Amino acid sequence: MDTTPEDPSQMPTEHRVALLSRSDRPFHVILAQQFDRELIQTLCRLAERVRAIAETRQGANFLRTLLSHKRAMLYFTQPSTRTFLSFAAACQVIGLSNNEVRDSSTSSEVKGESEEDTIHVLSQYFDVIIMRHPGEGFAELMAHRLNQMRRSIPIINGGSGKDQHPTQALLDIYTLHRCFSRLGSDGMIHQFEDNPFAGKTIAFVGDLLRGRTVRSLVYLLCRYPGVRLLFVAPDELQIQEDILEYAQRYNITHECPSSLPSVISECDAVYMTRLQDEHDTAGESKAIDYDRFRLDLDMKDKFKPHLAILHPLPRRNELDVRLDTDPRAKYWEQVRNGMWARAALLAYVFNVDAAIIDHHQSHYSY
Amino acid sequence: MDTTPEDPSQMPTEHRVALLSRSDRPFHVILAQQFDRELIQTLCRLAERVRAIAETRQGANFLRTLLSHKRAMLYFTQPSTRTFLSFAAACQVIGLSNNEVRDSSTSSEVKGESEEDTIHVLSQYFDVIIMRHPGEGFAELMAHRLNQMRRSIPIINGGSGKDQHPTQALLDIYTLHRCFSRLGSDGMIHQFEDNPFAGKTIAFVGDLLRGRTVRSLVYLLCRYPGVRLLFVAPDELQIQEDILEYAQRYNITHECPSSLPSVISECDAVYMTRLQDEHDTAGESKAIDYDRFRLDLDMKDKFKPHLAILHPLPRRNELDVRLDTDPRAKYWEQVRNGMWARAALLAYVFNVDAAIIDHHQSHYSY
Amino acid sequence: MDTTPEDPSQMPTEHRVALLSRSDRPFHVILAQQFDRELIQTLCRLAERVRAIAETRQGANFLRTLLSHKRAMLYFTQPSTRTFLSFAAACQVIGLSNNEVRDSSTSSEVKGESEEDTIHVLSQYFDVIIMRHPGEGFAELMAHRLNQMRRSIPIINGGSGKDQHPTQALLDIYTLHRCFSRLGSDGMIHQFEDNPFAGKTIAFVGDLLRGRTVRSLVYLLCRYPGVRLLFVAPDELQIQEDILEYAQRYNITHECPSSLPSVISECDAVYMTRLQDEHDTAGESKAIDYDRFRLDLDMKDKFKPHLAILHPLPRRNELDVRLDTDPRAKYWEQVRNGMWARAALLAYVFNVDAAIIDHHQSHYSY
Repeated sequence: MDTTPEDPSQMPTEHRVALLSRSDRPFHVILAQQFDRELIQTLCRLAERVRAIAETRQGANFLRTLLSHKRAMLYFTQPSTRTFLSFAAACQVIGLSNNEVRDSSTSSEVKGESEEDTIHVLSQYFDVIIMRHPGEGFAELMAHRLNQMRRSIPIINGGSGKDQHPTQALLDIYTLHRCFSRLGSDGMIHQFEDNPFAGKTIAFVGDLLRGRTVRSLVYLLCRYPGVRLLFVAPDELQIQEDILEYAQRYNITHECPSSLPSVISECDAVYMTRLQDEHDTAGESKAIDYDRFRLDLDMKDKFKPHLAILHPLPRRNELDVRLDTDPRAKYWEQVRNGMWARAALLAYVFNVDAAIIDHHQSHYSY
Repeated sequence: MDTTPEDPSQMPTEHRVALLSRSDRPFHVILAQQFDRELIQTLCRLAERVRAIAETRQGANFLRTLLSHKRAMLYFTQPSTRTFLSFAAACQVIGLSNNEVRDSSTSSEVKGESEEDTIHVLSQYFDVIIMRHPGEGFAELMAHRLNQMRRSIPIINGGSGKDQHPTQALLDIYTLHRCFSRLGSDGMIHQFEDNPFAGKTIAFVGDLLRGRTVRSLVYLLCRYPGVRLLFVAPDELQIQEDILEYAQRYNITHECPSSLPSVISECDAVYMTRLQDEHDTAGESKAIDYDRFRLDLDMKDKFKPHLAILHPLPRRNELDVRLDTDPRAKYWEQVRNGMWARAALLAYVFNVDAAIIDHHQSHYSY
Repeated sequence: MDTTPEDPSQMPTEHRVALLSRSDRPFHVILAQQFDRELIQTLCRLAERVRAIAETRQGANFLRTLLSHKRAMLYFTQPSTRTFLSFAAACQVIGLSNNEVRDSSTSSEVKGESEEDTIHVLSQYFDVIIMRHPGEGFAELMAHRLNQMRRSIPIINGGSGKDQHPTQALLDIYTLHRCFSRLGSDGMIHQFEDNPFAGKTIAFVGDLLRGRTVRSLVYLLCRYPGVRLLFVAPDELQIQEDILEYAQRYNITHECPSSLPSVISECDAVYMTRLQDEHDTAGESKAIDYDRFRLDLDMKDKFKPHLAILHPLPRRNELDVRLDTDPRAKYWEQVRNGMWARAALLAYVFNVDAAIIDHHQSHYSY
């Protein structure tokens, strides 16, 4: 093991993506940029099948056999309940035994162990490490290190540093897929559209500077020509330049309006986000007028009939609770979609996706 | 969702019970008053069958298939080891995957989320929420809120506020059932009596003011005409008036003697409780002479031959450890009964009780 | 239950071992002295079979049926990640449901319960208690107490006080077995040698005073005549006299050299350990020159070609990370061996070892 390793974040993106892959599919899942259009569609279709199969007791029991021979470690040293439980539930859906390390203070690090040694140890007991970590690039670095070991297992990034949250992006685009598709009477997509986002306007609203969720989702949406993106944020919290450049490179139309009421009537989807003031260094958020970035029941008249309202949650008052029972509120379903999308992703990484497709085909006529 | 909801605790009890039911059986389990005599007997019988089936490896493996397609969330934001583990073990007995939130400080609430949003999120991942919460009425309010959601799942109250602990009451009455029934050579009840408590004297001893356990159990015992209840407590810690009125309404004979030694020889069962001095506001418990509410080895001569000694545990010195090996000490079995009773209740809520009854009938002759 | 029990640690070892056994096999696993040569060989062979069977999906699923009808409690009130997760993974390998108590502050002890009552309660819900506890002799005392209960379940010692860590010793000797055996092309031992350690030199290096790991392993190695043990430690941290006497009694050759470089070329295995300075009372470790007890890449020229490097981990700088990719570094495999050895031990305690042997025989030709 080299003690002064090459920093993967300095490599070109394609090279990084290649190092995370084996046999042409992601082995480690670290970066939203690993998801190209084909893979996104594959995973969304797979998630939809998992959802459909899980509807029956017999189907749910089938799914639980898929990875009953494997064990997952949820290494979450950054606080998280939602993402943690989403992954835990996803593991249970496909039968993966799950284990956790959540508080680094109970771990061997108190005895002076390096975190890299901790990861090596975990890789001996488990078959996949799902990791949420405050360190930017830590998950990717560990993926590279495990690649050098005799026993090498996949790492799934459950949110790292300030930049990447690829599985959130996956569940978000899966939710958008469902919002923009025709659903059967069973609530399922029977026919997947190749590009349901062409001609649609999607607004990202709020603190776009400090949330990794929006950044990750934009990487995915840029794979869909014809989508129009609105970044609706206070000047101080506008999305970073590199993301706008990314959209530019992919020829994705985008604008940066300065308030939500002025554009809400054009939106096919709004993706609300909360003020991330825990990242404040000197209470700077207090000076910001966040009211212009709030979705209120009063704005209902301006909503398109099929508007989709998303929010990665937790929310504060930027999203009116009185909208919760409106059929356009998709954020509760979005939560549940996270479980299906993550179950699909894990199944794909472990190459049991074909078994899911077979089971679906033999039980459903569409 | 209404932000100023009707407070369910202000409704008449029958109305509250009705709102927690679906198709004539409890959907949510929140209140001890939901258990009428027929339901108590049904659940005790079911618990006894679960216990019998679990005796063999093949039976235990059968039970684990019952709810292997479901996931439970144990949301325990009030500290508890015993009840938590009892539910966790009960889930495992019937194959329910279990997950936990135990420390609200690790949850999204630190990011400003309302606890109601947290419950809504959990309801997306799981199929039942078992909840222990310091807030009086919180479990019931959440049950009402989930009733309004597209995806609505049951809530089981694992102890809320100061008043309700319905599953403890269930395990207690199941234990009393076993104590007052003739057991077969296999240690099982082969024939359930309709009212084994008629003519029996049951004493509740200790801090009856501040323990929700006794309150909940009295609701259940009042369904059995002919039982005689003794509330043996210091004046300052005597059971609340509403419970005495409840017993009155059901024509249940009850008395409030002021020391245990004076009545122990009349008792068929004693239900000991500890001093709950963690609820003291100014150390007022120190002034109380708790010795008259202690069960001591020295009192053994006065015990009826078939006295049943119960305690919800944890205990302090109000229950002499030298009684632990006396066959009349039923408190360890009472602990284990909690697991069976909770497994039975979960099976019942999920409508898999018929499968248990069928399996029992085809494997046991009684 | 007697409140002034006989202290088991004052009994002769054979008597202690007998009290922990039933039907000639360990019921409780508390002391390394319970493992005689025959039992060590049996458990190592069983661990190797579990490893081999787990290689295939079908085999892994078979193993998970072995104890799917049982529930384990991991009662770890002394901080531990590695041993905890090793046991948790081991339980999952053989299908044991696992549950945990890790922080005694969340338990009923805050309500004034004795720890003995806690163990009695746990024994009602679970079928085995795996215990890591700071109290010397606590696990053994609880084993004796449970022996007196109507419901009596096994206790497995996962590390107690300063002296005993029998399952670590088991995984260490299993690792040494694999290091000194001829492996097939599948990486498995096809033929177990009766005494692979005769004529071998094994060095224990570092803080031998304060680590229970080495103490426990020496008990096991003394069962193998012809092995030569080197205790390489600073004078202040040399292994305790009782262990040297134990080796003496078994006629095991042993020496106490004062630096590693002077003896490394003679070693067939080195067992490195870190400085346990968390046990310092006044920072006394700082005065110790630990450099002479460090294994460095520079010493590679002196290594025997088949040297086996072990470390119980966590490590600090006493073991050079640049050795990690050397094929003689066996410490990552040692970690994984812990999972197999503990799975084998649990299977043995629950008498399902025969099923493992049968399955192995019908699927493997050796």
